[in-house]
Amino acid sequence: MAVAIVTNVRPWGGPAADVVVDGGRIREVRPASGADAAADGERIDGGGLLALPGFVNAHAHVDKSWWGLPWVPYGGEPTTQGRIAHEREERERYGLPSVDAATAVLREFLRHGTTATRTHVDVDLGVGLRGIEVVREAADRLGGAVDVEIVAFPQDGVVRRPGVLDLLDEAAAGAASIGGIDPAGIDRDPVAQLDGLFGIAERRGVGLDIHLHDHGELGAFQFELIADRTVRAGLQGRVTISHGFALGELPVPRQRELLERFEEAGISWATVAPPGTAPLPWREMAARGIGLGLGTDGIRDLWSPFGTGDMLGIALGFARLHGMRTDEDLTEAVALASTRGSRFVHRDLHDLVPGAPADLVLVDAENVPDALVRCPERKLVIAGGRVVARDGDVLL
Amino acid sequence: MAVAIVTNVRPWGGPAADVVVDGGRIREVRPASGADAAADGERIDGGGLLALPGFVNAHAHVDKSWWGLPWVPYGGEPTTQGRIAHEREERERYGLPSVDAATAVLREFLRHGTTATRTHVDVDLGVGLRGIEVVREAADRLGGAVDVEIVAFPQDGVVRRPGVLDLLDEAAAGAASIGGIDPAGIDRDPVAQLDGLFGIAERRGVGLDIHLHDHGELGAFQFELIADRTVRAGLQGRVTISHGFALGELPVPRQRELLERFEEAGISWATVAPPGTAPLPWREMAARGIGLGLGTDGIRDLWSPFGTGDMLGIALGFARLHGMRTDEDLTEAVALASTRGSRFVHRDLHDLVPGAPADLVLVDAENVPDALVRCPERKLVIAGGRVVARDGDVLL
Repeated sequence: MAVAIVTNVRPWGGPAADVVVDGGRIREVRPASGADAAADGERIDGGGLLALPGFVNAHAHVDKSWWGLPWVPYGGEPTTQGRIAHEREERERYGLPSVDAATAVLREFLRHGTTATRTHVDVDLGVGLRGIEVVREAADRLGGAVDVEIVAFPQDGVVRRPGVLDLLDEAAAGAASIGGIDPAGIDRDPVAQLDGLFGIAERRGVGLDIHLHDHGELGAFQFELIADRTVRAGLQGRVTISHGFALGELPVPRQRELLERFEEAGISWATVAPPGTAPLPWREMAARGIGLGLGTDGIRDLWSPFGTGDMLGIALGFARLHGMRTDEDLTEAVALASTRGSRFVHRDLHDLVPGAPADLVLVDAENVPDALVRCPERKLVIAGGRVVARDGDVLL
Repeated sequence: MAVAIVTNVRPWGGPAADVVVDGGRIREVRPASGADAAADGERIDGGGLLALPGFVNAHAHVDKSWWGLPWVPYGGEPTTQGRIAHEREERERYGLPSVDAATAVLREFLRHGTTATRTHVDVDLGVGLRGIEVVREAADRLGGAVDVEIVAFPQDGVVRRPGVLDLLDEAAAGAASIGGIDPAGIDRDPVAQLDGLFGIAERRGVGLDIHLHDHGELGAFQFELIADRTVRAGLQGRVTISHGFALGELPVPRQRELLERFEEAGISWATVAPPGTAPLPWREMAARGIGLGLGTDGIRDLWSPFGTGDMLGIALGFARLHGMRTDEDLTEAVALASTRGSRFVHRDLHDLVPGAPADLVLVDAENVPDALVRCPERKLVIAGGRVVARDGDVLL
């Protein structure tokens, strides 16, 4: 891949710099020269804009959105159980999963500067592994501009749906990570689901990312079961709990007990920061090195009409929910939506530094907090050193 | 004022219509003619866009924002008390209140389609009534494109700051409504503050809009004191409680008791729907005819770096906080940010109907829920029949 130079940008709001890109990675970040610095390769004028790393969406569902299709009025039920049933009844009517819709979602991500995502993809007795193929094809259509990590997700349950464990095993053989969902609340048998999932993860050497909506001590009990199995299976650093609403709801001493277990087990956490949920102890999680990533969750699907795929908006929601106000904290919220998300998409390094993938988002903002608060249009999105969106339009 | 016709718009997502404007008001809304319908007057091409009424911001603080000035890192304290003190110490350093900054805020409102606002304006021993003059001058600069209703707001307390009641009385003589703040929590003497405020309101014939952050039963106690005084003073329909966080926090039977009192006293309610606060019983409030308006609160000020002035974003936050999901509910959220706000800005009628002020906002959206969820750019903003913003830029 050719050498390119993104001139005159302000990385994280710092002094003007030129970012030299080579082979899809950042080779150098150096003070802006102002002159015709690049002897060879493409010059991309950064126009003095604020530069952030590409956003990382640590929790998405790109297979189930009807983005780009005509509006679908919400017709679900208010419980998780009811929504699962509703989705399985209705999705075919809207032709889901579909490559077109999944591509539309990924384009919307890209338009907002997201260059890497972990997506849960429904695997159940109805759809089998077709959703995974659909998402892979959608990602291919965009030539890899969005780096997609797939989690085979048993949305409809595992133990209660005999045959799903086999599907997950097959997906894991094809290199997808595997997911789980409320081993108690949905499957009504936490030990059986977790034994099944961890069995596959150990055998296939894949990661685990488990949805946990269960509240209070029922949630906490399952956190403990997961942490125990993670250590026993030697899967430290490979297991994520998604949502995990219970954590924020528990008393601080109980949170602390659990965080110790997570730290020991190298468990990371993905949240979509829904308004009205209990704030997470994010400072203590960070101090303990417990990975925390932000995600959009599903957008515009049979679960909920909400969502735009804008990770900067998610970071803003996280900041507001957690009462973040200082510049340092607001900047950390943006880091949670970008650099801190690297572990959720198999990246060792994701930042505006040499060696990182050349994923940049340019916005017209005074500094990082200003960008967070206003969520302005993405003037330029660069993925792997290639300009993929400009002035809010995807160029692919 | 000249006759104008806004052609080919979809009011509230309905069939294409032409909106005939005369003397700053809507004269007629008729099926789109598709032909050269207007014999005289200006034609404004609506391009098939979704039309909503201008947004109404029922609770703003346009005097204290540093919008348009360089970024100010947040340096306040986490309590209401601490933030009040911080603001009074720091505001002069940033030249607040300033006509330029207040104008910048109003322009930002307008850019996002807000054509009428109620704004609380600080009145205290330091600034006196200067803030009110500043805001009036800012509104004048925009030629009344944003209809501004002023509430003289004793942010720093009333009883604890002898002399402030006299300032409020003077402001009321100049036709401003008057405000109050946490008669218990800040002034430490709820009866004295409320007696003072209601005395002025009765004598001057102005409305009251009281900030109430106090939680739980302490908040409820003050709701009762306010309702009692409202009935006694014959001020039914003239009194608003702003924030009133306590209402959502109380058990449903207690809420119901209070709602009965509010209904009897004609008390209305303004909320800025902060994430993490308790949802309001909005359905029951609507069923009882208790007015509910949405507002931005202060944006980008010494209290908080958040806020953009986008009422559609506030409606979205309200919808998410209250678990609204059906098309009907999502449309109601937008109505709360527009038509339902009329009573907060002294308008009998505010909608896309004959007789209403010709305030229209056009967006490229499939329907109202789609507009709410995406909060897209305002393609065209019309205030009093005049195009005041286009493609996100204010034309004034």
